[in-house]
Amino acid sequence: MKILIINPNTTSSMTKKIGVAARAVARPDTEIVATNSQSGPASIQGFLDVATCVPGLLEEIARHPDVDAIVIACFDDTGLDAVRTQVSVPVLGIGEAAYHAASMIANKFSVITTLSRSVPGLENNLMKYGLAQKCARVRATDIPVLKLEEGDPATLYKIRSEIRVAIEQDGAEAIVLGCAGMADLMSDLSAEFGLPVIDGVAAGITFVEALVNNGLSTSKIGAYASM
Amino acid sequence: MKILIINPNTTSSMTKKIGVAARAVARPDTEIVATNSQSGPASIQGFLDVATCVPGLLEEIARHPDVDAIVIACFDDTGLDAVRTQVSVPVLGIGEAAYHAASMIANKFSVITTLSRSVPGLENNLMKYGLAQKCARVRATDIPVLKLEEGDPATLYKIRSEIRVAIEQDGAEAIVLGCAGMADLMSDLSAEFGLPVIDGVAAGITFVEALVNNGLSTSKIGAYASM
Amino acid sequence: MKILIINPNTTSSMTKKIGVAARAVARPDTEIVATNSQSGPASIQGFLDVATCVPGLLEEIARHPDVDAIVIACFDDTGLDAVRTQVSVPVLGIGEAAYHAASMIANKFSVITTLSRSVPGLENNLMKYGLAQKCARVRATDIPVLKLEEGDPATLYKIRSEIRVAIEQDGAEAIVLGCAGMADLMSDLSAEFGLPVIDGVAAGITFVEALVNNGLSTSKIGAYASM
Amino acid sequence: MKILIINPNTTSSMTKKIGVAARAVARPDTEIVATNSQSGPASIQGFLDVATCVPGLLEEIARHPDVDAIVIACFDDTGLDAVRTQVSVPVLGIGEAAYHAASMIANKFSVITTLSRSVPGLENNLMKYGLAQKCARVRATDIPVLKLEEGDPATLYKIRSEIRVAIEQDGAEAIVLGCAGMADLMSDLSAEFGLPVIDGVAAGITFVEALVNNGLSTSKIGAYASM
Amino acid sequence: MKILIINPNTTSSMTKKIGVAARAVARPDTEIVATNSQSGPASIQGFLDVATCVPGLLEEIARHPDVDAIVIACFDDTGLDAVRTQVSVPVLGIGEAAYHAASMIANKFSVITTLSRSVPGLENNLMKYGLAQKCARVRATDIPVLKLEEGDPATLYKIRSEIRVAIEQDGAEAIVLGCAGMADLMSDLSAEFGLPVIDGVAAGITFVEALVNNGLSTSKIGAYASM
Amino acid sequence: MKILIINPNTTSSMTKKIGVAARAVARPDTEIVATNSQSGPASIQGFLDVATCVPGLLEEIARHPDVDAIVIACFDDTGLDAVRTQVSVPVLGIGEAAYHAASMIANKFSVITTLSRSVPGLENNLMKYGLAQKCARVRATDIPVLKLEEGDPATLYKIRSEIRVAIEQDGAEAIVLGCAGMADLMSDLSAEFGLPVIDGVAAGITFVEALVNNGLSTSKIGAYASM
Repeated sequence: MKILIINPNTTSSMTKKIGVAARAVARPDTEIVATNSQSGPASIQGFLDVATCVPGLLEEIARHPDVDAIVIACFDDTGLDAVRTQVSVPVLGIGEAAYHAASMIANKFSVITTLSRSVPGLENNLMKYGLAQKCARVRATDIPVLKLEEGDPATLYKIRSEIRVAIEQDGAEAIVLGCAGMADLMSDLSAEFGLPVIDGVAAGITFVEALVNNGLSTSKIGAYASM
Repeated sequence: MKILIINPNTTSSMTKKIGVAARAVARPDTEIVATNSQSGPASIQGFLDVATCVPGLLEEIARHPDVDAIVIACFDDTGLDAVRTQVSVPVLGIGEAAYHAASMIANKFSVITTLSRSVPGLENNLMKYGLAQKCARVRATDIPVLKLEEGDPATLYKIRSEIRVAIEQDGAEAIVLGCAGMADLMSDLSAEFGLPVIDGVAAGITFVEALVNNGLSTSKIGAYASM
Repeated sequence: MKILIINPNTTSSMTKKIGVAARAVARPDTEIVATNSQSGPASIQGFLDVATCVPGLLEEIARHPDVDAIVIACFDDTGLDAVRTQVSVPVLGIGEAAYHAASMIANKFSVITTLSRSVPGLENNLMKYGLAQKCARVRATDIPVLKLEEGDPATLYKIRSEIRVAIEQDGAEAIVLGCAGMADLMSDLSAEFGLPVIDGVAAGITFVEALVNNGLSTSKIGAYASM
Repeated sequence: MKILIINPNTTSSMTKKIGVAARAVARPDTEIVATNSQSGPASIQGFLDVATCVPGLLEEIARHPDVDAIVIACFDDTGLDAVRTQVSVPVLGIGEAAYHAASMIANKFSVITTLSRSVPGLENNLMKYGLAQKCARVRATDIPVLKLEEGDPATLYKIRSEIRVAIEQDGAEAIVLGCAGMADLMSDLSAEFGLPVIDGVAAGITFVEALVNNGLSTSKIGAYASM
Repeated sequence: MKILIINPNTTSSMTKKIGVAARAVARPDTEIVATNSQSGPASIQGFLDVATCVPGLLEEIARHPDVDAIVIACFDDTGLDAVRTQVSVPVLGIGEAAYHAASMIANKFSVITTLSRSVPGLENNLMKYGLAQKCARVRATDIPVLKLEEGDPATLYKIRSEIRVAIEQDGAEAIVLGCAGMADLMSDLSAEFGLPVIDGVAAGITFVEALVNNGLSTSKIGAYASM
Repeated sequence: MKILIINPNTTSSMTKKIGVAARAVARPDTEIVATNSQSGPASIQGFLDVATCVPGLLEEIARHPDVDAIVIACFDDTGLDAVRTQVSVPVLGIGEAAYHAASMIANKFSVITTLSRSVPGLENNLMKYGLAQKCARVRATDIPVLKLEEGDPATLYKIRSEIRVAIEQDGAEAIVLGCAGMADLMSDLSAEFGLPVIDGVAAGITFVEALVNNGLSTSKIGAYASM
């Protein structure tokens, strides 16, 4: 099968990283097409970025009509409802996929994301998906998305200290890493803290593989009906 | 004070109607600027239209930097969070304003909107605002937005029969007319059915007037912080 | 238009202060009638005061049959449902009005009120209005209502420190000042802390002006039906 | 032990009926004092009656300072929070008691009450107690409270047909009879429909007996603290 | 009447203690049969113990077909739904009974239980009963159940310090002692902290006495229907 | 990878069917071990069956210590929390898996299950998982589980008519077939009604494949900690 994983911002270095993470978990017979919007903001943090990147996202998706499933590789699940209305193949956001995965292996999880400004959008999503009650807390490191690209040790230190607080204060039993740029940290942090650390890219790819294998598509009656 | 009321679709006949409805309730010293997006869909029904009209909406708003408040004249409250992040004056969607007004004068209300496809978006909004528990039901007439423009008697018949069912079956004590194009029907229906019928344009204009008179602006710390 | 703003306790110095705050935001052509109950408790803190002041409140309202709208100037929204059943003009409590205003300009707000004993009543109201999910926390300063009248610097110090904690710990983006006696502090605190500070009296007056201008009255079918 | 069961309306024939129902379930060593307010409305239906009867209720309670527990014999649980603040013995409303009893013996219950106008108050109570999720629906027979006194066959017919609908449509597994005046119908209806039919007077008396036997009193820290 | 109080673990010293606590609150004419499962785990902490002890519990109950009511004396309310399906007499879990009692005398309560591992099960129960909104927090002392048997002063110290934190931080107005083994501590702690301290065994016995006196049985239509 | 799919009842014909459905969606390199409990009830309908089959389920699982993931093939998600405590590999119930799948491809879904008596258990599960808000309704066909084995045309007729009602009345956009024995009906019904029809066995197998491919295991801190 062929899965389109699309980064809704225009930073191609991040798209590359996302492609690598996607291929690392995909089945041998799955083809991963990693791409990004051709126009729009360089990173997505807060409601304004989320809104302005959607048309570029929809255009880029329209350039790939032959895929079997789509993963939106931004933790805000940018444009998720619009994309589901645009296509009929299964569509998952990486935030959404990560929350579902966390709910399947832990009683309660916390999310570690980048900026405080992104927290309300993620909380709204969790409420909309019904999974807010499984989420102990959404925590911000206040590290900008693009900073994660640079591999600064101070950055990693901040993430690790938020995980520790999530375990001790929130009673978190699993951690969702709330940004596509954090994908490569997952297994180290899981080993260090002795609990599942979930990356949305991996969750998104494997769950759409599952949906395709089930023969399931996005419902086209009701909310996501085509015009 | 100067209020921008913006129709996020490009149908100028609807913008005109909205402007008339806005001026009818505004204070004598309030200046109403009624406008619409210069690009984007002709009507907004369902998630895809909502998403694609936002950039045009933000651009048009940027052309009016001197206003004291903004009302988004689409019942989906299209781009509400993005607009609040873009500006610092108070911003209301007409759906949001109507739900708040209904909650202030009735214990329970029902919403009558156009297409079934629009219902899930409105339900999501109600949940996000916390007002879902005051809303007995969102009902669709399955009349397209632009059809309302034509004044067809069959259209009005359908709206009236949904109001009747809302009173009898939902226990609705007030009706929210869930589309900007229905604004001129309000007082007739209220008289006919003996209960408040709320129009979002009127509610939106008068509530932003209230916010401006309170000296209140959109909070710029947290969710709606500027970059 | 003529608005009755009624203080349900019998402390006339507080009624005076409320009248001043009301006139400060009312439109030029709005006449404010500020009054208080002729019998009942001197201040309202906790469930017993709330219950015993209602008959005096209803009697006083019956003395003003010619008003266009009513604002109940106690943060507990004392007797709100009863007053809505008694009259047919729009009726708002100042707590209710403040929560709606806060929900329109911020993603999350905290309430600063007087005594701890008043907190559960406010939390119950927030839940009933549906707005509990927008409220991060109701905080008490443990300053008695009447103490606020005296302008003690220690009082102001306590309010300011609670606002600081609300911003830092609750993630509050706006502050609701949860007592009618705090009305004159609003603009100073807003400037100092860089976020909207909402006073219920101002919100109440301007929102009922809006409802009257919309031609909206309290629904008289269902919950608030007259005998 | 000595239990005060107080009818917050002034209809003494109803107080008598309530006293009989109370004594029928009380332990042999429990003394039942059945009384009613000396002033206030003759029946309690809707928010206005609820509010105006509270002072008379509090006065009457103050005349009985030596009781071990109090049951408020109105299905609206009139003045419950105020009474809990006034005294320190356990206090239950008959609505509250009936909902708790129903939750202990059935997965889901429906309430049959008198007038439609009373439904929102009961729904608010259920939400406040947390038990709304166990309640399938609150149904009104639209029979006035005092009509129940007259033993009209048409009245009973209406009650029975609402029970039937509650079982078939709501999936109710138990029925709460939502009015003090319905107390004597309980066992007949239970036998006829083959499911538990719960009377609030019986539930209220036996539950306060239980609380007294547990040595439990109303908490006087927090919400119900005395002045 | 004859009440079966059954300890679902096999530790008979605990059963004895439970029997003593049960008889201390039961009416003079109530016969208490205190028993325990003949097979299964020695203590119940966490989901695995809860699941494995149920068949032993059901078998033991089948040996006592002549009782008028059943109390399950484990704070997890082990097997509650299954027992209700097995029999037709009223059945209460001691956790369930304690939460209902706490809701009747306090606006908000906290639960103090043994191991952290038990907390999620109790939280799930509270959500299922609808009473989660009355519970400020479930706190663990991390003292194993059987340790409570030994009367270690360090154990009591830990319980007392958790109660103090519950009052100060959670705003708890009542405390539920979340383990059958804590039954004898109730009155001392209540006197020391000046608030109600609720023991589930006492609450369970007196509430099933109440249900029996009401003539109420477990509903046998719907969820608890016999085969 | 090796997945254990376990039928918690002892009806081996059903186990066979489940194994076939599981292998039909599993990846080529996934080994499916389909088994059932050696002791316990022949079918699982209602709380009593759920409780009594768990020990047999845990024993059978202990006989397969070398598997990479476990799927519990009963729509009640029998013993799910207990199994997660017993093992450390990922564990999914087929009900749980189906609800997550439905939430990923539709805005709202309905569940069609067997007996009315099973409905409350499924509703409790949905509430516990947080997904109750995505579920429009759980509908019963009142066809016993084992009857499904017989291929009676009346059975299929009843299922099809419930699907039709779910679409028309509940606004369901996807259907979850709420019983393991319905697995083979999925694709026909999906084609007939033009919406996704979800089978829990297929969803369960493909989602645990996804979790294993993510390197995710059940969290062993908190709720599911081993002794």
